[in-house]
Amino acid sequence: MSTFNYKEHPHRRYNPLLDEWVLVSPQRSKRPWQGQQESFDEEPLPTHDPDCYLCAGNQRVNGDINAKYKGVYVFDNDFGSLMKEDTEWNPEETFTDDFFKLKPERGINRVVCFSEDHSLTIPEMSVDNLTKVIEVWQNEYRTLGALDYINHVQIFENKGSTMGCSNPHPHGQIWSQSSIPTLVAKTQENLQKYFQKNQTSLLADYLKKELESRERIVFENEHFVSLVPFWAVWPYETMIISKRHLCNILEMTGEEKTAFAEILKINTVKYDNLFQVSFPYSAGIHQAPTDGEEHPEWHFHMMFYPPLLRSATVKKFMVGYELLAEAQRDITPEQSAQILRDLPLVHYKSKN
Amino acid sequence: MSTFNYKEHPHRRYNPLLDEWVLVSPQRSKRPWQGQQESFDEEPLPTHDPDCYLCAGNQRVNGDINAKYKGVYVFDNDFGSLMKEDTEWNPEETFTDDFFKLKPERGINRVVCFSEDHSLTIPEMSVDNLTKVIEVWQNEYRTLGALDYINHVQIFENKGSTMGCSNPHPHGQIWSQSSIPTLVAKTQENLQKYFQKNQTSLLADYLKKELESRERIVFENEHFVSLVPFWAVWPYETMIISKRHLCNILEMTGEEKTAFAEILKINTVKYDNLFQVSFPYSAGIHQAPTDGEEHPEWHFHMMFYPPLLRSATVKKFMVGYELLAEAQRDITPEQSAQILRDLPLVHYKSKN
Ligand SMILES: O=P(O)(O)O[C@H]1O[C@H](CO)[C@@H](O)[C@H](O)[C@H]1O
Ligand SMILES: O=P(O)(O)O[C@H]1O[C@H](CO)[C@@H](O)[C@H](O)[C@H]1O
Repeated sequence: MSTFNYKEHPHRRYNPLLDEWVLVSPQRSKRPWQGQQESFDEEPLPTHDPDCYLCAGNQRVNGDINAKYKGVYVFDNDFGSLMKEDTEWNPEETFTDDFFKLKPERGINRVVCFSEDHSLTIPEMSVDNLTKVIEVWQNEYRTLGALDYINHVQIFENKGSTMGCSNPHPHGQIWSQSSIPTLVAKTQENLQKYFQKNQTSLLADYLKKELESRERIVFENEHFVSLVPFWAVWPYETMIISKRHLCNILEMTGEEKTAFAEILKINTVKYDNLFQVSFPYSAGIHQAPTDGEEHPEWHFHMMFYPPLLRSATVKKFMVGYELLAEAQRDITPEQSAQILRDLPLVHYKSKN
Repeated sequence: MSTFNYKEHPHRRYNPLLDEWVLVSPQRSKRPWQGQQESFDEEPLPTHDPDCYLCAGNQRVNGDINAKYKGVYVFDNDFGSLMKEDTEWNPEETFTDDFFKLKPERGINRVVCFSEDHSLTIPEMSVDNLTKVIEVWQNEYRTLGALDYINHVQIFENKGSTMGCSNPHPHGQIWSQSSIPTLVAKTQENLQKYFQKNQTSLLADYLKKELESRERIVFENEHFVSLVPFWAVWPYETMIISKRHLCNILEMTGEEKTAFAEILKINTVKYDNLFQVSFPYSAGIHQAPTDGEEHPEWHFHMMFYPPLLRSATVKKFMVGYELLAEAQRDITPEQSAQILRDLPLVHYKSKN
C-alpha cells in the first residue's frame, strides 16, 4: 500500500467559509481533452466603439444617452434583476406553505464603467485609474448602503464572453438589495462562529498561517495579499485579502487604496500572462453587509473565479458531478499558486 | 404603490432541499442579449465513429480495447477523479489545523455507454433500451454500493459540449466514493429533519401539493412525475420524482422501471423540442447513500440542469452574482413548466 500524498492522491479539502468540502484529484490532470474549446477574439478593440452601449456619448437600449464621460461612469442597469419600487405585499395571499416560501425582494442594480476607453481591461489600466474605480466602489457602497431598504451591496465583475459578459467595454456591476444573499449569509455565519469563539477574524488568522507557509501565496504588497485558497474550487481561483482587519471598503486608508489598486492590477496581469490571453473571470468583493449592525466578523476580501484550466481555449466545466454532488478540481491549489507566483508582473502585451 | 405579483416582480424563493434562497427576476426576460452564442453542430452523426473512444471495438486512450458490445456497456473511467487503491494515511502528518483540513478520498469512476449506436441520445432511444440502461444503473448502484469503502454512488450524465461533455457518444458516468458529497449531505440533512418531524417523505408531501396545483407539472405517468421545482435555478430545470416513496433505484418494480424509462424519454424529448436542438444538460439521480444505514428520509428523484435560456444558442450563465452571492433566474418556474408541458411528446426529428 502506498503512502498517502496530497500531491498525487485524490482527497477532499474543507472550506471553513462555506462549511463544505471540495474534491481534489491531482492525478487527473493527465486526462486528454476532446471537448469544447473556447474561442477568443484577440482582435484589438477600438478605444471608442459606436455600437457599444457603454461607450461615452452613445445611446443605450432603453434610449438613454451616456454622458460624454472620462474615467469612471456609473448608472442604473436598464435591465436589472431587482426593482427600486416598493410593492404592497400581503404574505397571506402569496405562497406561505412549507414548500412554497416566497418573498418580494427590493433592490438597485448599477453598472460601473471602469474607463471611457473601450479597449482597456483592468490589468491594462494604470494604478491611478484603478484607484478611481475603487473610490467609486466606496462611494456606491456608502450611498446604496445608506438607503434603509439596502442591506447588502454586491460589487462584482464578469469579464469575457466565457463568463456571460455581454460587452467587452471594461465594466462591472453592483447588485444591492434588502436581503443578505445565500452565499454571503452562509459565509457570515461561519465568520461569526469563529469570531465569537476566538475574538479574532477568521481570515486574519488564516492569512497569518498562509504567510508563514508561503505555499499558496501569489503576490504580496504592504497592505494586501493575493493567494490561492487552500480550498479553492476553480483551477486558478485567487483571493485578495487585506492585511489589516478591514470590515468593509470604506475603512481603507489612502495608502491601502493604492495598494489594493496595485494588487488588483498585478493579480489580473498574472492571469493574462498565464495563457497570453485576456483571462476571463468573475470577481467580486465580500465585505460586511449594510444592515446597520456591527460586523466585526467580516474581513474585506475579493474573490476571483476564473474558468480556464489548461490553455486559452480549455476551461473547467462545473457540471454533472459538481452540480449534483460536490465541487471538484484537478490541479492542486499549491501548483496553481506556484504557476501564478512565477509569472511576470508586466503584462504580456505591454511594450515595457 | 403597486401590489406585489410574483409573475412580475423580483422575489426570492426558498429551496427546502438545500435550505437556501434563489433570486427570481421575472421582469428581466426583456433584456437584450449581445453576449456569447453557443454553436451547435447539427450534422447527423455516424452510427459508428472510428475515432470515438466509446464506440464498440475501438481503442481507448489508455490502450484498452472496448468490447464489440451491443446495448449498454460499462467500464472503469481511464482518467477517474478517484482511485480504488487504498493509501496509508497518517492524519498527523497531513494538514490538521483548523484552516488546512484535508483527508484522502477513495472511490471508483465508471463510464456507462447507453448504446453501441454513436448517433443516438436518450430522447431518441426506445423505452425498451432505456429500461436496460436503468437496469445497469441498478446493478452498478448495487455492486458498487456493496463495497465496504463505497458509501455514495452518484449516477449522472453530462450531455452536449456546452456541458463540458467531451464525446457525443451517448454515455453517462458514475462516481462512487467513501464520503457523502457536500450537496448530497446537505440535502440529506434537510430530508432527515423533515422526516423526523413528520414521519413522512418531504418529497412525497411536496409532490402531493404540486399534483393538486398542477402549475409546475411537466408530465405525469402512473408512477412518476416530471415538474419544474418551485425553487428551480436553471431556466428549464426539471425533477422527476417517483410517486411511491422509493428510497433508491433498487426498490423499483418492473412496471416502475418501464414508467421511469418512459418519463426519462418524454422529459428529454420535450427538451429537444423546445428549441429544436439536441438539448444540453447535466442530469443525475439523488437517492439514499450506500453507507449501510437506514434512509427512510430519502426519496428517489432525478434532477435535470439544462443551461439554455432563450434559444438554441443563448444560455444562462451562472457567474458573477451567482458565484459570489446567490443563484438567480429570469423566467419563472411556472412559465417554464407551462412551456415544457405544452410541447409535443414526439421528437422533432422523428418521422412519425
Ligand atoms: O468526465 P468528463 O465528461 O470528461 O468531464 C466532465 O464531467 C466531469 C464530471 O461532472 C467534470 O468534472 C468535468 O469538468 C467535465 O468536463
Ligand atoms: O448582466 P449581464 O452581464 O448581462 O449578465 C451576466 O451577469 C449576471 C450577473 O452575474 C448573470 O445573472 C447573467 O446570467 C450573466 O449573463
